Amino acid sequence: MTLRPIIALLTDFGLADGYVGVMKGVILGIAPQVQLIDVTHDVPPQDVRVGAWLLSTVWRYFPAGTIFLCVVDPGVGTARRPVALHAGDCLFVGPDNGLCSFVLTATPAERAICLDNPAYHLPEPSATFHGRDIFAPCAAHLAAGAPLEALGTPFDPASLVSLAFPHPTWHEAALIGHVLHVDRFGNLITDLDPVVTTVVLEAPTVAARIADRVITARAATFGDGPADEPFLLRDSSGHLAIAVRNGSAAALLGVGRDAEVTISGQPAG
Amino acid sequence: MTLRPIIALLTDFGLADGYVGVMKGVILGIAPQVQLIDVTHDVPPQDVRVGAWLLSTVWRYFPAGTIFLCVVDPGVGTARRPVALHAGDCLFVGPDNGLCSFVLTATPAERAICLDNPAYHLPEPSATFHGRDIFAPCAAHLAAGAPLEALGTPFDPASLVSLAFPHPTWHEAALIGHVLHVDRFGNLITDLDPVVTTVVLEAPTVAARIADRVITARAATFGDGPADEPFLLRDSSGHLAIAVRNGSAAALLGVGRDAEVTISGQPAG
Amino acid sequence: MTLRPIIALLTDFGLADGYVGVMKGVILGIAPQVQLIDVTHDVPPQDVRVGAWLLSTVWRYFPAGTIFLCVVDPGVGTARRPVALHAGDCLFVGPDNGLCSFVLTATPAERAICLDNPAYHLPEPSATFHGRDIFAPCAAHLAAGAPLEALGTPFDPASLVSLAFPHPTWHEAALIGHVLHVDRFGNLITDLDPVVTTVVLEAPTVAARIADRVITARAATFGDGPADEPFLLRDSSGHLAIAVRNGSAAALLGVGRDAEVTISGQPAG
Repeated sequence: MTLRPIIALLTDFGLADGYVGVMKGVILGIAPQVQLIDVTHDVPPQDVRVGAWLLSTVWRYFPAGTIFLCVVDPGVGTARRPVALHAGDCLFVGPDNGLCSFVLTATPAERAICLDNPAYHLPEPSATFHGRDIFAPCAAHLAAGAPLEALGTPFDPASLVSLAFPHPTWHEAALIGHVLHVDRFGNLITDLDPVVTTVVLEAPTVAARIADRVITARAATFGDGPADEPFLLRDSSGHLAIAVRNGSAAALLGVGRDAEVTISGQPAG
Repeated sequence: MTLRPIIALLTDFGLADGYVGVMKGVILGIAPQVQLIDVTHDVPPQDVRVGAWLLSTVWRYFPAGTIFLCVVDPGVGTARRPVALHAGDCLFVGPDNGLCSFVLTATPAERAICLDNPAYHLPEPSATFHGRDIFAPCAAHLAAGAPLEALGTPFDPASLVSLAFPHPTWHEAALIGHVLHVDRFGNLITDLDPVVTTVVLEAPTVAARIADRVITARAATFGDGPADEPFLLRDSSGHLAIAVRNGSAAALLGVGRDAEVTISGQPAG
Repeated sequence: MTLRPIIALLTDFGLADGYVGVMKGVILGIAPQVQLIDVTHDVPPQDVRVGAWLLSTVWRYFPAGTIFLCVVDPGVGTARRPVALHAGDCLFVGPDNGLCSFVLTATPAERAICLDNPAYHLPEPSATFHGRDIFAPCAAHLAAGAPLEALGTPFDPASLVSLAFPHPTWHEAALIGHVLHVDRFGNLITDLDPVVTTVVLEAPTVAARIADRVITARAATFGDGPADEPFLLRDSSGHLAIAVRNGSAAALLGVGRDAEVTISGQPAG
């Protein structure tokens, strides 16, 4: 834990309402010295999978001891558990609905706590805004030095909810991946991981087919790509991505998340 | 006042221009130790009423001593007064145009000051950006320890501008309320207050009519609502809201702000 | 440099992905005491000119010593230099692609460094995200006290890339300017500078023609403008702007960036 603890927020609350601001107000009342960092609040409403992906791309770049306060919570107030986890030298606070799935694939949780100690909640928590009434105060108490175990009842991290999402699969001689995320620039980031990406980019006879279009061009950078066609490159997450120079691959190809990307060898020219 | 003073900003400046950033630059030049918190900058342009509502939902959750810097200011540079208020252990800085109306309904202002002391403004203030030239430096000087009275001339808080907005009214046996705010999730938050909301939610024969649709379902949480119809619940502000599970009530019902919601008893089934 | 150094961020990364958050995580790992301020992240994707304009409107309002971390970088990973500049008592870190053009027109750079010392980068920087791997760590090391010269090789600031953009030109008796920026409110901010603006606003027989419409009304403030027609006023940047009271001049006139504004005398009424 740094001397000035960091709480990094990731939600689907957007910035047009007061939901994020009110969480920060609650936190500052408990932990005035905290450094508050916004990861994003524009996860599409209730889209746990996008939240899980974005969290997985950022968390390793934060200092050890960072507290990630993650609230994409369509089940707020229902039986889903409010939890705090210790994994990879960081803490994660939020609903147990799979938001940490990608993180925990890389780094198993060492400890998990159900946030059932009301002494660390706001008085009379609402049924509809646990971000304000449970998760923000629990994260703030952690930042102020409360031990994880004080916040509630430990449980076996193996029972944490894990998201179901598509994985790359082999179909005869082709590897079928999927678009995992479309970013602001229209880049299509796939679920083909860094190892597969190296193989694809280094094998000149391998092509990607998406939306009935065969993509063979490669580039090391956005600016080096061809001017008039989509190309393959390694995204900053390490995954295979499809991009267009100074443009949007999503718009050009007319595809979005979950679109299939088929990787296969091409007959030698 | 905490040792590290908080300035919480609420504006309609958006985040695509430099207007918010420049206010923060001005503040940090005067009060380098301040903690800057964004409540929201996406109040619809010049919509004082939305700003007033959002402010009312957040301010109580901030620590005592927080300085709210609120700039939704279609009358910038005209005769409307620039003011600072002391109310409910917090300070509010901005134009006197009703932005604090909902706050002051709950908590009368104890002191009000017209910000007419140019020593606390930037030199040669513009006529079009008092957020940068008057409000930000005044808020920063307060954060740096200047007493409220130093900033200008006291006046009677009773003369503060108050917004006119619709209130719930009885029409024969029906109570007619209004949609006060549509949030990011498409939830319709009404002007029916916490007390009325309790009565409505606990009386099973009472229904809400909006956009020619009668709503009788209730839920304690978003996730517990019925899968295929809009339902009533208590919003995190305490007010009555109409929601759709994993969807947008505003889109489903085709209504927005100011839509009428008629509350009345239904014949027993 | 203040005791608590400021890094002000300006990018085209948007807030819906994790790109900004990850840069902040990197910075806090190197310079935990830094104050992070967002100028904007909503520069239109890859639009260096909008970024350059916004930077020019904000930087002077920040305290001396502020480090501006500016990443609008369509050429990331290509031959364009990663640089840090010292100009006007501030530091500017980002790609050498003209982002500082407007700043440097007002205040020449005193020192320029190519960021080619890998000791100040993240290990194994990607080719596609220098914001995370080079610019953020360099800015953070500056905030933590590293001297500018430690970060790489000095070069002559005269060789910095400068943007080409339209300038006002005389055409017979008319001065032809251009819309430089359309802000959130739909105000049309032109490249006619403060001196020209004073002349235009004070000469009652001078009119502006834009989109086949002649504009003669003037106002000192948005609220003082006429109710039913566009008018001229001095923007908070000092430049000439065209506005509509409680509305959008861009929408009313159907014009956007780069639209021509012709300033000329009108026959006396």
